[in-house]
Amino acid sequence: MTALQDKYPEDFSHCYGCGRLNSHGLHVKSEWKDGEAVARFTPEPFHIAMPGFVYGGLIASLIDCHAMATAAGAFMHAAGKAPGTDETPRFVTGSLQVDYKRPTPAGTELVLTGRAVEIGERKVIVEVSFSAGGNETARGRVVAVRIPDSMKAS
Amino acid sequence: MTALQDKYPEDFSHCYGCGRLNSHGLHVKSEWKDGEAVARFTPEPFHIAMPGFVYGGLIASLIDCHAMATAAGAFMHAAGKAPGTDETPRFVTGSLQVDYKRPTPAGTELVLTGRAVEIGERKVIVEVSFSAGGNETARGRVVAVRIPDSMKAS
Repeated sequence: MTALQDKYPEDFSHCYGCGRLNSHGLHVKSEWKDGEAVARFTPEPFHIAMPGFVYGGLIASLIDCHAMATAAGAFMHAAGKAPGTDETPRFVTGSLQVDYKRPTPAGTELVLTGRAVEIGERKVIVEVSFSAGGNETARGRVVAVRIPDSMKAS
Repeated sequence: MTALQDKYPEDFSHCYGCGRLNSHGLHVKSEWKDGEAVARFTPEPFHIAMPGFVYGGLIASLIDCHAMATAAGAFMHAAGKAPGTDETPRFVTGSLQVDYKRPTPAGTELVLTGRAVEIGERKVIVEVSFSAGGNETARGRVVAVRIPDSMKAS
C-alpha cells in the first residue's frame, strides 16, 4: 500500500519527519485504512530518553507527522478522494498536545493510530493513540491547518 | 557558564535531545540565569518541515528538553540549591503542549526561554517562549514530573 506521505507534492516532501526527499529524516509512513491512518516505526538505538526508554521528543515528532497525514487522509476521504492513491494535500501543525501516560520501552516497534475527530475546510483535529508492544504509552491531540500561502514555494 | 544538562547524573545523560553522553543527539544546553533558563540552538540544514522553515517536531523536542531543565533549575532554586553548579535532578515529561504561532524560519539561531509557573514537590509546570530572529514563533506549556523509580537504572 502507498503511504499518504508518498503522495505529497514534491515541493512538500522534504520534511525531516516524513519527507521522502529528506535523506537525513525519519521517513514516517502512514497508511490509510477503514477511516483511520496507521504508522509503524522502529526507533534507532540512540533515540532514547535514558537507557531502555524512547525519547519523548521522538514520540512527539512521530505523532506530529502522523497526525498531519491523518488529517490529509480524512480531508480527502470527506471530499470523495482516495487517500493513498490521489495526491495528498499538505497540512501544517497549529498545535500539538502529547500526554505521556507511561514510559515507552525501547527496542520494540511503535504503532500510531490516528483518527480525525473534527474536519473543517481549513483545519482538522486529529487524535492519535501511540503504543509499544500492544500497550498505549502516549496520546496526542493535534490541530492540523491547511498549509498557508506564506509557506508555499514561490 | 555550565549548562543544567551538564550536571545531570551520568545515568541520566543519554537523552537524544540533551544528553551529553548521546553522540547522535541534539545536545540542547540550558543555562539558568535570574530565575529562568535560556537555550540557544542552531538547527542543521535538514531539520526542516519544508524548504525555508524549521521542522515542528524539532521545535517540540527542543521545548521538551529545555522545559525539563527549566523545571529542574526552578526546583533547585526553590530548594536553596545552585542551578548550574549543584547536581541537576532529572525530570521527565508528563505532558507537552506546543502552540505554533507562525512558521519558524530556517537558517537562524533559535532561542528558548523557560520559566516555572508552578513548583510542587513532585511536578513542575513550565512555560517556554520559542523565538527565531527576535520573533516568537511558538509557545510551550510542559508538565515536568520527578523521574519515577521505574525509570531509574537498577
